[in-house]
Amino acid sequence: MDNLEKKDVANLREEVVAGNGLLNRRALLRSALLGAGIAAATAGVVDAQDITGADAPEWMKTPGRPFSAYGTPSKWAEKVQRIITVAPGRPGTGVSRTPLHLMEGTITPAGLHFERHHNGVPDIDPSRHELLIHGMVKRPLAFSLDTLMRYPMETRIHFVECSGNSGAYGAPQPLQMTAGEMNGLLSCSEWTGVRLSTLLAEAGVSKDAKWVIAEGGDAAAMSRSIPLEKCMDDAMIALYQNGEAIRPEQGFPMRLLLPGFEGNMNVKWLRRLNVIDAPVDARDETSHYTELMPSGKARQFMFAMAAKSIIVKPSLGITMKGAGLYEISGLAWSGAGRVSKVEVSADGGKTWALAALTGPVLPKAVTRFRMPWHWDGRPSTLMSRATDEAGDTQPTRAAWVAQFAPGQGYHNNGIQSWGVEADGTVKNVYA
Amino acid sequence: MDNLEKKDVANLREEVVAGNGLLNRRALLRSALLGAGIAAATAGVVDAQDITGADAPEWMKTPGRPFSAYGTPSKWAEKVQRIITVAPGRPGTGVSRTPLHLMEGTITPAGLHFERHHNGVPDIDPSRHELLIHGMVKRPLAFSLDTLMRYPMETRIHFVECSGNSGAYGAPQPLQMTAGEMNGLLSCSEWTGVRLSTLLAEAGVSKDAKWVIAEGGDAAAMSRSIPLEKCMDDAMIALYQNGEAIRPEQGFPMRLLLPGFEGNMNVKWLRRLNVIDAPVDARDETSHYTELMPSGKARQFMFAMAAKSIIVKPSLGITMKGAGLYEISGLAWSGAGRVSKVEVSADGGKTWALAALTGPVLPKAVTRFRMPWHWDGRPSTLMSRATDEAGDTQPTRAAWVAQFAPGQGYHNNGIQSWGVEADGTVKNVYA
Repeated sequence: MDNLEKKDVANLREEVVAGNGLLNRRALLRSALLGAGIAAATAGVVDAQDITGADAPEWMKTPGRPFSAYGTPSKWAEKVQRIITVAPGRPGTGVSRTPLHLMEGTITPAGLHFERHHNGVPDIDPSRHELLIHGMVKRPLAFSLDTLMRYPMETRIHFVECSGNSGAYGAPQPLQMTAGEMNGLLSCSEWTGVRLSTLLAEAGVSKDAKWVIAEGGDAAAMSRSIPLEKCMDDAMIALYQNGEAIRPEQGFPMRLLLPGFEGNMNVKWLRRLNVIDAPVDARDETSHYTELMPSGKARQFMFAMAAKSIIVKPSLGITMKGAGLYEISGLAWSGAGRVSKVEVSADGGKTWALAALTGPVLPKAVTRFRMPWHWDGRPSTLMSRATDEAGDTQPTRAAWVAQFAPGQGYHNNGIQSWGVEADGTVKNVYA
Repeated sequence: MDNLEKKDVANLREEVVAGNGLLNRRALLRSALLGAGIAAATAGVVDAQDITGADAPEWMKTPGRPFSAYGTPSKWAEKVQRIITVAPGRPGTGVSRTPLHLMEGTITPAGLHFERHHNGVPDIDPSRHELLIHGMVKRPLAFSLDTLMRYPMETRIHFVECSGNSGAYGAPQPLQMTAGEMNGLLSCSEWTGVRLSTLLAEAGVSKDAKWVIAEGGDAAAMSRSIPLEKCMDDAMIALYQNGEAIRPEQGFPMRLLLPGFEGNMNVKWLRRLNVIDAPVDARDETSHYTELMPSGKARQFMFAMAAKSIIVKPSLGITMKGAGLYEISGLAWSGAGRVSKVEVSADGGKTWALAALTGPVLPKAVTRFRMPWHWDGRPSTLMSRATDEAGDTQPTRAAWVAQFAPGQGYHNNGIQSWGVEADGTVKNVYA
């Protein structure tokens, strides 16, 4: 801080909005104030003499590599990979997680979108794949990919989150996992496809129909019962993801997208929609994806993912380099609609301040929040807390855990905490 | 149309809003009306008997492939590649274009973002790369990647367009190129990085400074003079693209992003910003990227890309399958801010109707427009025309060409036309 002018320091003090150095989020826009000191503090000031004498690096002395038909990430970023966890002896059953702690912004590139497969990724010939709508309809219909391409399309940005995401946060003692290992069953894409209500209207749904059974074309024939109301609302048959054909791991050639609903219901490799009048007790809505309550009974059909947020910067694996100015940033989302606010605490929840939200804040999409922080170098506990436009706020971890039988891991949206130690390391803590 | 009910046909007629079958854009939201007939017309109605007897396809009978650390597109989409054009004998000099005609939505996946290189893609070691800010500043500063990571960041969706994009549209006779071949020097990403004004404020810009010379760390040391005003406005040092580290072809580890300004000024592999009081007549602002006028003089420093739109569906290479309902869709953008409207014509510009815009409509970002069309099967000429929030509208091709000396190819934003033939093929036409 030696290079800050006296006036800047005075302004800085005025900007404190909550305990332990949280600064007014508007300071993000006052560049002259907030910028001051970081370059200086990290020895960025250079002698004018060094500039003229600087040699060009070797990569400027030889032609670079040529053009490529389909680009790949920098070799220097090769650690930025999905984090794979599979069942022993069953390489196609398990998950891979998005490495959220190594990323920025809100969009997940398709190559890093989380995966949840029940029997691997099928290799579907798109010219032979059909989507069948049948059951309680006037006219059963089969849609080839070519036929679907003729329909009016919509483009929307939405997150998909597995309902088992952050399940490890229910462990009795804090597990030392990165933000991606803990919360990486969450990704956000721009999806394009045909609104499902368009297709159901064409098939002519019976007045008595109430549910739709969606079945995937994978070797698990993954099936879920979906309320007809959701199918007639914002459900989409997604054909494109971030501008290109949906990826095999995400359901190529088509998936069901139910914005805000738990990931498992967004059936991939979608091949059948059976319109009926009652749910079918599919394997993944009875043996999985239910919530065991203290009474010993299990709650079923908890569809929408609740308001949630996580701090990814700093987080476990990112070591802070001494006292000074930093940006805290993270992700917030809700299956109920838009995030209305995110609050951040640097003193373990004693005081909170509003974070800045990256616009546009879209319904059922990931929003990036940012909060300037002047860390004094002492141990600190960082937390974030999202509220959505329906008025729901994340509960504390303790309040969340108390609702369920021990070990219940679905729909965990408890407030998470990172402990920053004096040496700059960051740990998962329960606060 | 045989399967449309009489009532539907009557409604359909009421919805016509411009010549040759353009339908009210609100019809996009009235699914029952617009959907009717497409599945039926393409033989999608199935016999209930076929459903119960249907065999599962072979890909449901064997476990699928396992998880992957970084996903790649479907093998069935392998034709969706960048379109490469290089100088003979100089594999690192030229362009690769985004295949817009094979894509949907608004985001370009990083692997398909267009490339323009002057001497290849350098392989920069990020731990040895520095961004230097020097010249007319109080304190020259050198920023390592680690230092920049400490700064407050911003996340915004912006297009980048080469000023030579659509240059082939100036040819005396229409060239039979796809929408991507013609217009694919346009891409749109979510960018995250540090606002340049933050860094300039920390360096302390002299009162007399007016320009900034940006230099890239490639083997061409690509340089451009940038008005200081733009650097203090919305310019960004971009570190992330669509959530992950910026790709090598886009400037890894950092590029200058000047939202709305011609692509060449968004200097990649950025290594120096020299703050001065006058432009330097760099090679790429004198021998290239100037506009030759009828007088024989060349216009220099035409920074912002103008309002523009292109139809990509249908377009050359996409054959329409007989009369009936279709969706016309395309991309619109402006370097001046938001797109305020896009109009579409199906009768060669005689009548126009408003297209639906996919929200949110963001400043200096690509917007997808959509328009329902009932094609009667006769030859038709499709056009689109964007207007931006500054009130500027695309000129006709003839009006655009008349402004310049023959062959001037930069900043071509003339209205483009596709001719749909009776057999469903689509051609580039001048109308």
